Amino acid sequence: MDSKEVIQQNRDYTLFSWSVQSQANPIHIAGGKGAYFFDGDGNHWLDFSSQLININVGHQHPKVLEAIKKQVDELCFAAPAFASKPRGELGKRLAEVTGLAKSFFTLGGSEANENAMKIARLVTGRDKIITRYRSYHGATMGSMTASGDPRRWPVEPGIPGIVRVFDPYCYRCPFGKQPDWCHRECVSHIEEVIQMEGPHTIAAIMVEGITGSNGLLVPPDDYYPKLRALCDKYGILLIDDEVMSGFGRTGTYLATQHYGIKPDIVTCAKGLTSGYMPLGAVIVSDRIAQHFENTMLWGGLTYSSHPVSCAAAIANLDVYEEERIFDNVNSLGHHLGQRLEAMKEKFACVGDVRYIGLFSVLELVKNKETREPLAPFNGSSPEMQKLAAYLKSKHIYAFVRFNMVWVCPPLVISQEDLDKGLDVYEEALALVDEMIQAPAAD
Amino acid sequence: MDSKEVIQQNRDYTLFSWSVQSQANPIHIAGGKGAYFFDGDGNHWLDFSSQLININVGHQHPKVLEAIKKQVDELCFAAPAFASKPRGELGKRLAEVTGLAKSFFTLGGSEANENAMKIARLVTGRDKIITRYRSYHGATMGSMTASGDPRRWPVEPGIPGIVRVFDPYCYRCPFGKQPDWCHRECVSHIEEVIQMEGPHTIAAIMVEGITGSNGLLVPPDDYYPKLRALCDKYGILLIDDEVMSGFGRTGTYLATQHYGIKPDIVTCAKGLTSGYMPLGAVIVSDRIAQHFENTMLWGGLTYSSHPVSCAAAIANLDVYEEERIFDNVNSLGHHLGQRLEAMKEKFACVGDVRYIGLFSVLELVKNKETREPLAPFNGSSPEMQKLAAYLKSKHIYAFVRFNMVWVCPPLVISQEDLDKGLDVYEEALALVDEMIQAPAAD
Ligand SMILES: Cc1ncc(COP(=O)(O)O)c(C=O)c1O
Ligand SMILES: Cc1ncc(COP(=O)(O)O)c(C=O)c1O
Repeated sequence: MDSKEVIQQNRDYTLFSWSVQSQANPIHIAGGKGAYFFDGDGNHWLDFSSQLININVGHQHPKVLEAIKKQVDELCFAAPAFASKPRGELGKRLAEVTGLAKSFFTLGGSEANENAMKIARLVTGRDKIITRYRSYHGATMGSMTASGDPRRWPVEPGIPGIVRVFDPYCYRCPFGKQPDWCHRECVSHIEEVIQMEGPHTIAAIMVEGITGSNGLLVPPDDYYPKLRALCDKYGILLIDDEVMSGFGRTGTYLATQHYGIKPDIVTCAKGLTSGYMPLGAVIVSDRIAQHFENTMLWGGLTYSSHPVSCAAAIANLDVYEEERIFDNVNSLGHHLGQRLEAMKEKFACVGDVRYIGLFSVLELVKNKETREPLAPFNGSSPEMQKLAAYLKSKHIYAFVRFNMVWVCPPLVISQEDLDKGLDVYEEALALVDEMIQAPAAD
Repeated sequence: MDSKEVIQQNRDYTLFSWSVQSQANPIHIAGGKGAYFFDGDGNHWLDFSSQLININVGHQHPKVLEAIKKQVDELCFAAPAFASKPRGELGKRLAEVTGLAKSFFTLGGSEANENAMKIARLVTGRDKIITRYRSYHGATMGSMTASGDPRRWPVEPGIPGIVRVFDPYCYRCPFGKQPDWCHRECVSHIEEVIQMEGPHTIAAIMVEGITGSNGLLVPPDDYYPKLRALCDKYGILLIDDEVMSGFGRTGTYLATQHYGIKPDIVTCAKGLTSGYMPLGAVIVSDRIAQHFENTMLWGGLTYSSHPVSCAAAIANLDVYEEERIFDNVNSLGHHLGQRLEAMKEKFACVGDVRYIGLFSVLELVKNKETREPLAPFNGSSPEMQKLAAYLKSKHIYAFVRFNMVWVCPPLVISQEDLDKGLDVYEEALALVDEMIQAPAAD
């Protein structure tokens, strides 16, 4: 079967997510290695999006593949009521790397967040969950409603009890401030919301460790300590969604570890197994674990703690540690930051760059002074399409959304490959600059 | 690490689903083969519950293991925007076996049902979903609310728009009828509900093909044709949840195929891969597939159409066909039915037996005349605990809930093993008979 046939069969018999089907234009992926994947025509693509920002150890890492095959031969399935070796071992490893107590295993990020919210409600006896507007927590009804992302609009109303607040989005501060002359209204307004909603009604505040697909919003350094203090003041649990920002993406296991705070509940998926096997986890504090010693945990799924998924996660953790992957993230992250800052200097269309580790975005504008976005919220533009098409034509696989383009390569990438990709980004940005600087056609 | 240590580590670091943690009493599962699994102390257990009624091809089937390992070596992950060989091939195979058009892939049953409801709402532009009281559709907020199962109680209110109706539960008919002298009020009352809710507000009726964990309710033969006609009359979509009843469990790919009707949407998981890899699917009719050619499908998940999961499903379908597994289900199912009917004759505590293929339950009562259940709804009793403990002591792994005990072995079981397990059930039922027939102690 050639690539054309594979693509046709995929289109004839399967549905593509978040797509108008007639407009889906899939690449046939046939293999990969490290920071590259290969299409069915033999082209090598530099994966600057780590697939869906998940393949942290890179494509086809031999150690993870071996561990999966070994577990498949030993025991391929166990129902969630059973104890299994990989399940226990992974639970222990996750407690070690997060400083929390116990894990409940799901399959992906959406289900992890569903269960985190459920757990917070059961533990506190309170109903409401505070989330932020610029956020994505998943597509099942609970997680979709918790998201602020426009992807929730078509399926509203969702679940009751979600209350949304603003984001630490300093480039476009909702409070009209700048980080060097504000009072962290991004936190203080949440206290106002808590007051008005009733502190005794709020089970949890759920936030992405670092907001990912809604713009990579790196908060000011004192944001998390202030948010943690606010939660403690009102007995509200802090749920840290590390699905995208966790497991080395920012150079630590949890993005919140950069800020010296500890959440009550962490959710993760993606980098936990790098997507080699589907797995998500809800990791809870000792206090929460103790709560369920004598009361019922009302949650479950057939494939909870799938042994092969757990084995894949353990192998992933081994790779992170044995190959000192986070060191690579930290040193390359530093280099990436410098290059992004240089692009901001150089190109008229680069309004802002935000980065931490190998997690970064360029936010593009029509005009640096007015900061007018290069594409509207929840929309696109000819300029953004040009940029996306150019990257694609050079076999750089990138995540482009609204007026932003991300740089999130596998964490094993070399500096040479990183620079190679960034050079192509510069070529694309030059094309965009030409478009926005040309006199308007009439 | 010995079994005691494995179990302790599982308890120390992981949470067990649907459990008070201090009461969880997990078996350490270390391996398996066919209808048996092995615990860490070397005991062989006859798996009369197919784990969570999912391991249809039996434990550690070599063909499925090989297919998984092959795919792992070739390409272990692809993001959902990509076309891949296993994805297209599985889509085609599912269209063939269901008579429907296109598949959207999820990870488990809950997410399949979430997406089925979403799709029904997007296609019809209507909001309400009719579901049945005695049903389980999953644990995420949408699927949990859609369930009638008491597991939804602690997390209500769920999503808006769910309307519940009664079940074809002939042994305890909510309308006080018997199947030979009723007017199928189990369907006709749904028309009354449709009228009162407003037909133009109802997107879909969602039912389990055969109700599984809420009592294995095999409907009268004309139930589905009547339900299908009702849906057609009002332009309501029929969503058939075949997560538990599909993929050979009843001897056909879909339980509804026994009744000569075609749903608009089928959801599946479990037997689709036998749980070897996590996978769920929403399979839609051509009309629905066409709808999304030019409008957006608002749904997705990072691990949609995971290549290894798709490869595991294809291998599973190959096993079903090459080894003529459904023939085994049909012939052993006939034998199982006869043995269950004999138990109903023989034991005072067996009130009703319900079966189709290798999907069956015994419903136990204190008294055959009054039909008083041997344990209350959503509860247990000393008699049911005795039965469960006896089966466990003989290394028969069985699903016991409320006043019911299921017989759902892997579809590859031999008649010899089936009889061996049923003999132990008879011993357990004799013990229960002793308990209910003994004069009450005072
Ligand atoms: C921060 C965050 N949370 C949750 C999710 C949902 O995870 P999944 O797609 O595995 O359901 C995502 C997915 O992109 C995410 O980025
Ligand atoms: C009929 C039915 N639907 C849906 C589900 C949910 O599937 P999962 O546990 O994979 O989320 C189940 C699980 O037992 C089920 O039996």
